[in-house]
Amino acid sequence: MQALILEQAGQLSIRDIAIDQAMGPDDVRIAVRNVGVCGSDVHYYKHGSIGPFVVREPMVLGHEAAGMVIAVGDKVTHLQPGDRVCMEPGIPDLRSRATLEGKYNLDPAVSFWATPPVHGCLMPEVVHPANFTFKLPDNVSFAEGALIEPLATGMQAAEKARIRPGDIAVVIGAGTIGILTALAVLAGGCSRVIIADLVQEKLDIAAAYDGITAVNISRENLCERVAQLTDNWGAQLVFEASGSPKAYAKLFELACPGGCVVLVGMPPAPVAMDIVAMQAKELRLESVFRYANQFPRALALLGSGKLNIKPMVSCVMPFEKGIEAFERAARAEPGDVKVQICFG
Amino acid sequence: MQALILEQAGQLSIRDIAIDQAMGPDDVRIAVRNVGVCGSDVHYYKHGSIGPFVVREPMVLGHEAAGMVIAVGDKVTHLQPGDRVCMEPGIPDLRSRATLEGKYNLDPAVSFWATPPVHGCLMPEVVHPANFTFKLPDNVSFAEGALIEPLATGMQAAEKARIRPGDIAVVIGAGTIGILTALAVLAGGCSRVIIADLVQEKLDIAAAYDGITAVNISRENLCERVAQLTDNWGAQLVFEASGSPKAYAKLFELACPGGCVVLVGMPPAPVAMDIVAMQAKELRLESVFRYANQFPRALALLGSGKLNIKPMVSCVMPFEKGIEAFERAARAEPGDVKVQICFG
Amino acid sequence: MQALILEQAGQLSIRDIAIDQAMGPDDVRIAVRNVGVCGSDVHYYKHGSIGPFVVREPMVLGHEAAGMVIAVGDKVTHLQPGDRVCMEPGIPDLRSRATLEGKYNLDPAVSFWATPPVHGCLMPEVVHPANFTFKLPDNVSFAEGALIEPLATGMQAAEKARIRPGDIAVVIGAGTIGILTALAVLAGGCSRVIIADLVQEKLDIAAAYDGITAVNISRENLCERVAQLTDNWGAQLVFEASGSPKAYAKLFELACPGGCVVLVGMPPAPVAMDIVAMQAKELRLESVFRYANQFPRALALLGSGKLNIKPMVSCVMPFEKGIEAFERAARAEPGDVKVQICFG
Amino acid sequence: MQALILEQAGQLSIRDIAIDQAMGPDDVRIAVRNVGVCGSDVHYYKHGSIGPFVVREPMVLGHEAAGMVIAVGDKVTHLQPGDRVCMEPGIPDLRSRATLEGKYNLDPAVSFWATPPVHGCLMPEVVHPANFTFKLPDNVSFAEGALIEPLATGMQAAEKARIRPGDIAVVIGAGTIGILTALAVLAGGCSRVIIADLVQEKLDIAAAYDGITAVNISRENLCERVAQLTDNWGAQLVFEASGSPKAYAKLFELACPGGCVVLVGMPPAPVAMDIVAMQAKELRLESVFRYANQFPRALALLGSGKLNIKPMVSCVMPFEKGIEAFERAARAEPGDVKVQICFG
Repeated sequence: MQALILEQAGQLSIRDIAIDQAMGPDDVRIAVRNVGVCGSDVHYYKHGSIGPFVVREPMVLGHEAAGMVIAVGDKVTHLQPGDRVCMEPGIPDLRSRATLEGKYNLDPAVSFWATPPVHGCLMPEVVHPANFTFKLPDNVSFAEGALIEPLATGMQAAEKARIRPGDIAVVIGAGTIGILTALAVLAGGCSRVIIADLVQEKLDIAAAYDGITAVNISRENLCERVAQLTDNWGAQLVFEASGSPKAYAKLFELACPGGCVVLVGMPPAPVAMDIVAMQAKELRLESVFRYANQFPRALALLGSGKLNIKPMVSCVMPFEKGIEAFERAARAEPGDVKVQICFG
Repeated sequence: MQALILEQAGQLSIRDIAIDQAMGPDDVRIAVRNVGVCGSDVHYYKHGSIGPFVVREPMVLGHEAAGMVIAVGDKVTHLQPGDRVCMEPGIPDLRSRATLEGKYNLDPAVSFWATPPVHGCLMPEVVHPANFTFKLPDNVSFAEGALIEPLATGMQAAEKARIRPGDIAVVIGAGTIGILTALAVLAGGCSRVIIADLVQEKLDIAAAYDGITAVNISRENLCERVAQLTDNWGAQLVFEASGSPKAYAKLFELACPGGCVVLVGMPPAPVAMDIVAMQAKELRLESVFRYANQFPRALALLGSGKLNIKPMVSCVMPFEKGIEAFERAARAEPGDVKVQICFG
Repeated sequence: MQALILEQAGQLSIRDIAIDQAMGPDDVRIAVRNVGVCGSDVHYYKHGSIGPFVVREPMVLGHEAAGMVIAVGDKVTHLQPGDRVCMEPGIPDLRSRATLEGKYNLDPAVSFWATPPVHGCLMPEVVHPANFTFKLPDNVSFAEGALIEPLATGMQAAEKARIRPGDIAVVIGAGTIGILTALAVLAGGCSRVIIADLVQEKLDIAAAYDGITAVNISRENLCERVAQLTDNWGAQLVFEASGSPKAYAKLFELACPGGCVVLVGMPPAPVAMDIVAMQAKELRLESVFRYANQFPRALALLGSGKLNIKPMVSCVMPFEKGIEAFERAARAEPGDVKVQICFG
Repeated sequence: MQALILEQAGQLSIRDIAIDQAMGPDDVRIAVRNVGVCGSDVHYYKHGSIGPFVVREPMVLGHEAAGMVIAVGDKVTHLQPGDRVCMEPGIPDLRSRATLEGKYNLDPAVSFWATPPVHGCLMPEVVHPANFTFKLPDNVSFAEGALIEPLATGMQAAEKARIRPGDIAVVIGAGTIGILTALAVLAGGCSRVIIADLVQEKLDIAAAYDGITAVNISRENLCERVAQLTDNWGAQLVFEASGSPKAYAKLFELACPGGCVVLVGMPPAPVAMDIVAMQAKELRLESVFRYANQFPRALALLGSGKLNIKPMVSCVMPFEKGIEAFERAARAEPGDVKVQICFG
């Protein structure tokens, strides 16, 4: 089967590869349609590794995917051939303590697409456990379906925050995850989101949504703006989605007494945190590692029309031009939110 | 000062009454504009009492109010004359255990407008504590401002439910509180609300909102409909807003395993509950008594445009026709959500 | 293999029965040592059914068990032959939505020992999934190990209550589950437990523990006693562990404003509940269906000595006298908390 | 009235001072008995300031106090002369947003004993609001009563952690706050506390309690020890009570996946935090600023005997030797937990 393969750092190819795709009774076989290019895919492409995960053998990339069911295992009842679906890319050990405790995303033994040595899904067909495969509502396209994986991270952040209806939120960083987090928390109960970034093109995309106020921090003082929009009380919720160490300097100033700060972005090194400033407001900090049980929630919001992610699909390129798609994603054009690759 | 007074059960009058309106340093004086007629006002009018609260002396009615600040006490800093505001009608003892624990609505010593022997606000001017008086956003009219009090009950229900983004909710009862609860939980993070009632006119008002599915239970089986809309899993959240004992018979069938049922409506007598059915799904039941800290949240949602309650104001009558307004409210016309009385 | 078998309602026998005990790679084989006789075992013995669960074929009874590992599957790493263990009797479908959401006890497909048509564990050897088998601390005997299953229900009640350190609790009912709930909530953070029953022998067993106050409701007014012990505020937590409809009449009077009532006991029929009384205090109701993830917590408390359940083992009879043990349990002697049967 | 006064940094005196002690209708007058010397008192003594709080005028020190009621205001009903009491030293503005939201400790306008320019309580009599004055149970001495203030910080940490019954906790730092936190979380539901410090004398005091395991980190590897005591899973709860930047290096390694870290100690400067390590386990961080609503909880635990703080009172010196007491506290002898000053 043809696949988009990372041969080693810096070298992609589209070629045949033999992959075992035997199907068990609880699995489904899916014809892949759209696959998003994620920052982690690009990072593996450029550097050949992320932290302890090193690409030592050629590896199929891609983990943000939607497609159509073409066969189902004997025990599968909730899906059938022809169903349009999206797939959750990480499969935990179902017997693990983390899974039984309801946090399967934290199982150290999780098998995750395109995380070495596990192959990703940038190929025409994949076999996947049915209980990690979700039917798309009729009004959700394959392109949107392939965006649910990053959206699920925003949903996880929204759930961790324990939004109370009407909360005001700040999101720092208007990259893909930042905007999807903003949309998730707005749909998830916030009255207003103030999103901050340095890049005006990204802010413009976010600002097109009702309820989102964009602040270009190269020109405006974010703390002052938040104070003004919150009667000098501060935001109930702050989402750090930039991963920038600089964002941490004023992080706690943005929050109200008793507020919550959710850490979504991943800083490249330890950052200095002013613990006493955090204590003076008795803040709660939450952190996010992927997601658990978020795909059905994201699909419910998309299906009802409360959440619209269509504008996030910046560009869809055919599989044959998959390497070009990676190069475009690697350039990180300011107006791009998500580049996708499609089959068929 | 002229006021709309309940002389005794069944007898209203508009007449002068002497009321002490001395202003303390933490108070504001407000020119009243819009006042909604609440079911409790009508109940006092018809019956002269609600439970242990008996009208023994003539009492000014009304507790859902908005108006304009005309004077402020010496220590008031966040309001000034000319501010358009709405008022929270219940003032607790700030020294009480309930208040210090953050649940001031449960303070037994609360003083609540139009709850005997405390006068209500159906008069041209009132004096009120500044910290229970809230500035209206520019896009919120006095009519909407006077609707925030019942909306706050819906917000309290939404907060008690601890909505997780994307939850599906059922609301039983499409009266004023039912619809406002539906709007609050939709703005508060639910993906979809299924609202049930017997009266088609009420359902039509609710069904005009995106995300609300109306079910007329005189014609449709609610349990079946919920099962169908939730992949046979049940709704994560069920709000009982009808107060009808009949609603309790199938209440737990609507909820998913581990779901939550919020009891908003007040049944006239104890109801039979199937505890084992509740346990089999390990359901959580929450209950609502007015609200605490909900006015700012409601105003944030109205101010950002996420919540639109304009269609809930069915009719506004001038103060001079206040008794007529009560008679209309007492008739409970199926197409009426809220009847209001206005000054000036 | 010999087993204690319920042939049909009212008829027990100890005889050979052929049971498939093939061991998979994730299983362990256990020599059973102690097995408690549960109220549900006795109910099947007397009536042949519990609700929809009907004994249609001879069924091995027993689901409260401890024993010694005698063999382990290829993939089992945390247990080895010779380990003293207790076993969680309900095995869910690990792929189910309930399991992934962290509430595996609510999976409708759970397979539970001695719940028809699933055999129980009153036989010399059982095969069990390793991840539902837990090592006993050195200071915990087999007899105590076999008590962890009912204790886990008390632990589940304690967790659902969300105890805040120093809360005062009322437990209604001093049967096995009532006392174990009292011990769990006391170890779990309550400052004091007031336990109520009609049977003095049972109360005496509970009252022997520091921190437990026993109230014989045939002689004392429970509401008055609770008011006196809580400065007229009410208890933060109330656990209904009697299943008696009578207990519901005053249930909400015992709780403080904003308190929580946990429903553990199972009333035989729907009970009348005063919803308005519940709302006036804005109470939260929680319910309990078995337990999830409680065995390790119970073992941690027993291992550290914070929880002492030794006095709960009233009588241990050898397997040969197992039918006698059932008869004794069926008589429900007032001084008996738990009757057990042991092997070897 | 004689008082122990900080004249300026480094200079204490016991002398007469005129202090307004007019009593309002909601106040009580208290004959002070025991007052603990807190680290903050010592810090003001040595440095004349803590952060933005600078001693510019002579100030009475002391805020950890117990005494006897000698007069009550007209509206006070729950206290009477002769009652033995302890006092909460911080009085918020009851009208503030923070107070109404149930977090009065976060009100910026709080008036706190011995925080400039507010006088403390090291004098024979004080006037205090009755609702911040708490009756001591009969089994709680004045010395213990004066320890409730620092214990309340440990209780706040315990509540913030949201302990689930049976959790295993690590406490870093065996100073006064560290040990009191350990005792609070043990009484508050943990099965076991592992406490870590460099000073063996402090560890010995903690280790004398059942359920506390002391680890001297100058000799033992804390991470290894925690791994061993938690089956390599990590502790559910970690309390940082040392304020040492070094403690932050391995902080997240101690916690289990999905665990919680509570920051109680106040590092003197920002500390480097490994955000990615926190995210990999999806940890929650809580912080503590004094306490709210903890005095009644602490008293309930002391009253029932679940919590024993008697060994924490290392030394009680008469008021006349108050300066000596400060010098002893300033020396920070390794075997001292709390030095107190008493009247009468």
